[in-house]
Amino acid sequence: MANKKLTMPVWNNQAPEPGTYRSIFKWGDPEEFKHPSEQLFDLIRSEFNLPDSHFEKPENEGFDLVELPDHPSLLDRKHVEAIENIVGEENISLSDYDRLNYSSGYAMEEIMEMRSGEIHEISDLVVHPRHTDDVRAVVRYCNENKIPIYVFGGGSSVNFGLRPTKGGITLVMCTHMNKVIELNEMDKTCTVQAGMMGPAYESALNNAKELFGTKKNYCCGHYPQSFEYSTVGGWIVTLGAGQQSSYYGDAYDIVLGMEFVTPVGDIKTHNFRATATGPKVNDILKGSEGTYGICVEVTCKIFYHQPENYVPMGFMFKTFEEGIAAAREISQGEFGFPGVMRISDGEETSMGLKLYGIEGTWMGTAIDLFGYKSGERSLFLMQAEGEKGFARNVAKNIRKICRKHGAMYLTGYPIKKWEHGRYRDPYLREDLGDYGLIIDTFETSVSWSNLHNLHQKLREYIKQRPHTMAMSHASHFYSEGTNLYIIFFTHMDKLEEYRRFQKGIFETIVANGGSLSHHHGVGRMIAPWMEEHLGKVQLDVLKTLKRHFDPNNIMNPGGQMGVDYEASDLKDHEWRIDWKKM
Amino acid sequence: MANKKLTMPVWNNQAPEPGTYRSIFKWGDPEEFKHPSEQLFDLIRSEFNLPDSHFEKPENEGFDLVELPDHPSLLDRKHVEAIENIVGEENISLSDYDRLNYSSGYAMEEIMEMRSGEIHEISDLVVHPRHTDDVRAVVRYCNENKIPIYVFGGGSSVNFGLRPTKGGITLVMCTHMNKVIELNEMDKTCTVQAGMMGPAYESALNNAKELFGTKKNYCCGHYPQSFEYSTVGGWIVTLGAGQQSSYYGDAYDIVLGMEFVTPVGDIKTHNFRATATGPKVNDILKGSEGTYGICVEVTCKIFYHQPENYVPMGFMFKTFEEGIAAAREISQGEFGFPGVMRISDGEETSMGLKLYGIEGTWMGTAIDLFGYKSGERSLFLMQAEGEKGFARNVAKNIRKICRKHGAMYLTGYPIKKWEHGRYRDPYLREDLGDYGLIIDTFETSVSWSNLHNLHQKLREYIKQRPHTMAMSHASHFYSEGTNLYIIFFTHMDKLEEYRRFQKGIFETIVANGGSLSHHHGVGRMIAPWMEEHLGKVQLDVLKTLKRHFDPNNIMNPGGQMGVDYEASDLKDHEWRIDWKKM
Repeated sequence: MANKKLTMPVWNNQAPEPGTYRSIFKWGDPEEFKHPSEQLFDLIRSEFNLPDSHFEKPENEGFDLVELPDHPSLLDRKHVEAIENIVGEENISLSDYDRLNYSSGYAMEEIMEMRSGEIHEISDLVVHPRHTDDVRAVVRYCNENKIPIYVFGGGSSVNFGLRPTKGGITLVMCTHMNKVIELNEMDKTCTVQAGMMGPAYESALNNAKELFGTKKNYCCGHYPQSFEYSTVGGWIVTLGAGQQSSYYGDAYDIVLGMEFVTPVGDIKTHNFRATATGPKVNDILKGSEGTYGICVEVTCKIFYHQPENYVPMGFMFKTFEEGIAAAREISQGEFGFPGVMRISDGEETSMGLKLYGIEGTWMGTAIDLFGYKSGERSLFLMQAEGEKGFARNVAKNIRKICRKHGAMYLTGYPIKKWEHGRYRDPYLREDLGDYGLIIDTFETSVSWSNLHNLHQKLREYIKQRPHTMAMSHASHFYSEGTNLYIIFFTHMDKLEEYRRFQKGIFETIVANGGSLSHHHGVGRMIAPWMEEHLGKVQLDVLKTLKRHFDPNNIMNPGGQMGVDYEASDLKDHEWRIDWKKM
Repeated sequence: MANKKLTMPVWNNQAPEPGTYRSIFKWGDPEEFKHPSEQLFDLIRSEFNLPDSHFEKPENEGFDLVELPDHPSLLDRKHVEAIENIVGEENISLSDYDRLNYSSGYAMEEIMEMRSGEIHEISDLVVHPRHTDDVRAVVRYCNENKIPIYVFGGGSSVNFGLRPTKGGITLVMCTHMNKVIELNEMDKTCTVQAGMMGPAYESALNNAKELFGTKKNYCCGHYPQSFEYSTVGGWIVTLGAGQQSSYYGDAYDIVLGMEFVTPVGDIKTHNFRATATGPKVNDILKGSEGTYGICVEVTCKIFYHQPENYVPMGFMFKTFEEGIAAAREISQGEFGFPGVMRISDGEETSMGLKLYGIEGTWMGTAIDLFGYKSGERSLFLMQAEGEKGFARNVAKNIRKICRKHGAMYLTGYPIKKWEHGRYRDPYLREDLGDYGLIIDTFETSVSWSNLHNLHQKLREYIKQRPHTMAMSHASHFYSEGTNLYIIFFTHMDKLEEYRRFQKGIFETIVANGGSLSHHHGVGRMIAPWMEEHLGKVQLDVLKTLKRHFDPNNIMNPGGQMGVDYEASDLKDHEWRIDWKKM
């Protein structure tokens, strides 16, 4: 399948014009780009069987200005005025652009919609609360007047978690409610407003000595790929997991207490790690995805900032099976966990060797020479951290276990390359999308004993579609299991085909014992499968809580998390719910 | 305060006669006893200011046979027959003895009641379900007929968790539902029936190679003082914590999934350590104390059985403050936790040196000589465990930190003595009770930053009563805080005085920022303070869940956990709720 060299397209390298669709769906910093490498471009051409002519002209680039004459705000002006009286006129917006912007996340489907000019339901009024009192007043007003409230944290939702399916207002948490309230060095905790963005939070902790006069500097321990465009509150209400979660814990583990504003009143949970005073309301609020109330403040466990103790490592295994066997032994070894743990299957390993620039180097040659076969071999990246002796002992055990499972040691080079690009991969989506290429991800929790079955079933499903790549890794580890994170990559420019394809993925997961989501949350995208996955008796518990906290169904209403509609609304899992008709 | 030597009483050394009150309230194995040492007895005499004549004759020993003509079973015979048809006649009992026995836990107040012949509310029918189908059928029948159901696990409740305040039936889980269902070595989990007792579970895991053909032997990691008389299901529904919890986690952390039978249907949660599919019903059921449904099956994380890696250690600090400072540094050190961590305040240290037989030995002398002053000094016991290198590194860090805080190393001797008696201290209560002496415990969670304040306030409250000892330790550690476990010891033989005294303890905790319970649960004893402690908005969430799972209020009804009564029922925190009148 040798291809004659084609000059790469001239990738877009311009910050999107303000006010355009592209400025909404482009990931991250407007001035930042990540273009496909030549290796990646060659791979695309060979894998996807696209003619050279395909790359002559980009399409659906979203350069148009957002103007939505057919989607006026439907909120009665008296309500607009009332909200304005609460937060001040500088903190509301009725503009088409703002209303679309704050109603959109980064699901592939949302991006495809915006590229093709399909406008989904959008907010009627964007509101930037200044503090908890504003949030409380807005919730009270909206509850009295039965106006839906949606919450925008950092905006990185990938499952329609921000979509205002019932209209109403959208509260933007990151604009003002983004400060550190207290760093308690004695308890090793930090209390922040829920709208604080990841980098600002991490920077405050990293510079704690200077900023807060503490004895040490700290770090937050939660570094999801969306780190730069997500909020502390968002991490918790969607049950996120960072890329170093195996050591630091998931957002679920890191949060200690929260303050919530709900239609039935405020809740401030105690900051106890453990109590025996009945089921914990703090737990009930974690992962509630805006359906029970609004998280305004969180108290999190923090960690020492000690990068000097990092022990980066990389290994190559003969097969994914061998790599997973080692990963299981590490996760169950009772010597503690490394921070990063990331093991790729055969197909992802091939891509990784290209992306990290290992293919073609002495290291790539050595891997070949030692008989680690392309397509089968499995790349395992790790980084031990924590106290120095702890990190060293973790590393020592890992090396021993990996050796036992026939791994070749690759030094810390590959993880350094990975780390460099860890937050940058999403930037690739714009270039690819300009040529109708989809790169999308989904993820599931799985027990060790079901991992290979589920992996195989998911690959079978994806690979039945011609010219479709499926790259998998496991990256969050527990004694009892891990997650599977699957990236599919293909040429597909019809929204309807995409939706149908995605439906099959969720069906495959549910039918084969994975969880519907490991750390992306439910949103509206996965909600239709919640009843089948959890069972009616369990979903009814979440629905009862919904009715309790939000008797007028104003909090993120219209299908979010599956708690305010009946399975019968779904007409045998129709692949697209018409939320408006609900 | 020198006392002339008094001959110790002849402590009771006879297994209680079957059928007597004493056979119910005596802790543990009928044939096992632990008598006060001479040192302890001398201390009792001097501290409590009791005349020699006080010890001439034991009182209220509970030698009478249980005969309750005034407390007949009030359950209609047609219901008795219906239940009998479900479980078989050999699995029900209407005897007075069984009805009292399975309605009683080990709260000091319950023991005092039985000693003084005060009979509380008791079960109308004792039922021993054989399997989940029995439980399901009984719950269905009782729900249809609105018959209350109480659940007896291993019977070690210390907060009236078993008290059938509304009559009805009591299900005894430990009789038949006590088997291992599956040991999954791949996932390092074990699924057991909820009624399995601690020692049987631990023994099965310790002998897994032989019993289940596994590659390794395992342990359960949960060793509360009630270990021998508590069930795996009971650990979880009361949110227990074992004496090695700092390393293994609390019951809350150990359980992965559960099967529950509730009036609205069965729930079997997925065995995922982490998912992002909304709030976790598994979490909601943890700590539900029989008020939402009945736990019939649990899947727990298990651990390698590797006692060869234990590193036992003991230290003496100049003060409790120094010891706590070291404990905090250890808990926040990010090198992992030891299993046992137990630090005693000044008063408990004095007692510990007596109980562990250190006083009067060369070690005791050395402690004195090096200037660790009696009454101020603080004993810290620890045991590192886990993988060998991990345990050694934990121990190394602990030694370094303790040295920094001025501690004297005491070898592993004191912890070995403690370990020997770890499950045996409750046996002391019978001898003491025979002479009107009370030794009782309560416990609370607390942040590091509030620990000394709460400790001082609780001591002030207890010590204002003359001739009352108050011994405290912290024994469950987290990065953010710990627990305080307070033992008070005094002469007090009036139930009413005891109840009033206890009320003051809970009031002191709530007023000073502790949690109402760290690991004993709520039961009926602490329930009256739940609303003040959690706030109405939070308690309302638990009440809503109660109504959801149990619309007819048949599951452990009558005040358990505070979820089925209103605070207004309490008449300004009357120190005793008349549950019958509710």
